[in-house]
Amino acid sequence: MLERVRMVLIQTSHPGNIGAAARAMKTMGLQQLYLVAPQQFPHDKARELASGAADILDAAVVVETLSAAIADCSFIVGTSARSRRIPWPHQNPRQVAQQLTELPSHTNIAILFGRERIGLTNEELERCHLHLQIPANPVYSSLNLAAAVQLIAYELYLTQQTENANQSECGWDYPLATAAEMEFFYTHLEKVLAEIRFLKLTAPRKLMTRFKRLFNRTRPDAMEVNMLRGMLTAVEDTIKKGR
Amino acid sequence: MLERVRMVLIQTSHPGNIGAAARAMKTMGLQQLYLVAPQQFPHDKARELASGAADILDAAVVVETLSAAIADCSFIVGTSARSRRIPWPHQNPRQVAQQLTELPSHTNIAILFGRERIGLTNEELERCHLHLQIPANPVYSSLNLAAAVQLIAYELYLTQQTENANQSECGWDYPLATAAEMEFFYTHLEKVLAEIRFLKLTAPRKLMTRFKRLFNRTRPDAMEVNMLRGMLTAVEDTIKKGR
Repeated sequence: MLERVRMVLIQTSHPGNIGAAARAMKTMGLQQLYLVAPQQFPHDKARELASGAADILDAAVVVETLSAAIADCSFIVGTSARSRRIPWPHQNPRQVAQQLTELPSHTNIAILFGRERIGLTNEELERCHLHLQIPANPVYSSLNLAAAVQLIAYELYLTQQTENANQSECGWDYPLATAAEMEFFYTHLEKVLAEIRFLKLTAPRKLMTRFKRLFNRTRPDAMEVNMLRGMLTAVEDTIKKGR
Repeated sequence: MLERVRMVLIQTSHPGNIGAAARAMKTMGLQQLYLVAPQQFPHDKARELASGAADILDAAVVVETLSAAIADCSFIVGTSARSRRIPWPHQNPRQVAQQLTELPSHTNIAILFGRERIGLTNEELERCHLHLQIPANPVYSSLNLAAAVQLIAYELYLTQQTENANQSECGWDYPLATAAEMEFFYTHLEKVLAEIRFLKLTAPRKLMTRFKRLFNRTRPDAMEVNMLRGMLTAVEDTIKKGR
């Protein structure tokens, strides 16, 4: 499982944090570092704090958008300290680690880390299947970015060690839908919802948020997303014929 | 238990690590920081990396010898990456945390962290009741000092939380849909699917089975089922108007 997990750092301000995150990853056997629009990278400070994990930095994939970072991932976890107005499924690092080992094999996994000061945006969090909250002191819960990476990587490593026994595969019939497939589906859904004037009836953004929460929670497979999109197309066709 | 644990950093080279360790401690509700002969302290870099944990730094106790740091402690844990020639009882952070909660109350506990490059000396390790080893990548197991403090503090905090028993609620906003509500929804869905001729396109029973699997998996709440049914009604209304 560890080689299918990518750590995605979004708009990191301090290059030192990128380096320290790389080091944290390597100590726990993680290799894939993705950087979405980092403010300064490459940078000497990143290299210095990476210590013996320069190879992780060298192999880091730098992209401009979150979509590019997760397009081929089918399970997205967002780290978040805040609780949102519309509650999302959330778990602690240990529970997340356990859940990741239970995904069908070959599932690409992304774990998103937000900006140092403000974390992930609501829009970013809505793209996640699961929110990860690190249990922390309610009076002061502000973990350093690399420290959060370290904790989560540690839990993944530990769970993997335990699971390495001989876990059988889950045996699902189709691969889970990728982030790109889900994005196409949501765009299609939004279009049809507007067409049938369902999107206007209530606050539009909140409605799409609830739909995303609903469908992300169920982790649809590729076949199911095709089925849902087929249904949307059938709605569109029926409406067209009626006119 | 947390207020009886002191983190003892021995001859730390980089003041930034002291600050980052203070921050890590505070996020997990630890307060007692002891510094044995730090190379540079106080220091601006320590303060900078402590972020919102300046109070931990201000209250840090600086001493010249390890003996002075642990004199009133009854249980001493030494962090160590290496295995020693003479094997010592050693445990991982989770096991240590569990063991600490089982100590008689009022026991003062010290956890020792060695120098950045060479860790604890044999003489220091021999003063410990227990050695703590963080499970890590055998190829590269060199955790940053503050990262090690963070991991161990996290395990202590988590164990303490678990011990605190009374599991809190999950905090969802609406009750889960009842079986009856789901049945109404599926009947409604099937009707609309037939109306838009989506149900004929493929084997009918298999399609409904897949829809049921998809929606049951997500365990919708009552509000979400209302939303889905509202969408179905909007589809029906739009088709009627078109005719």
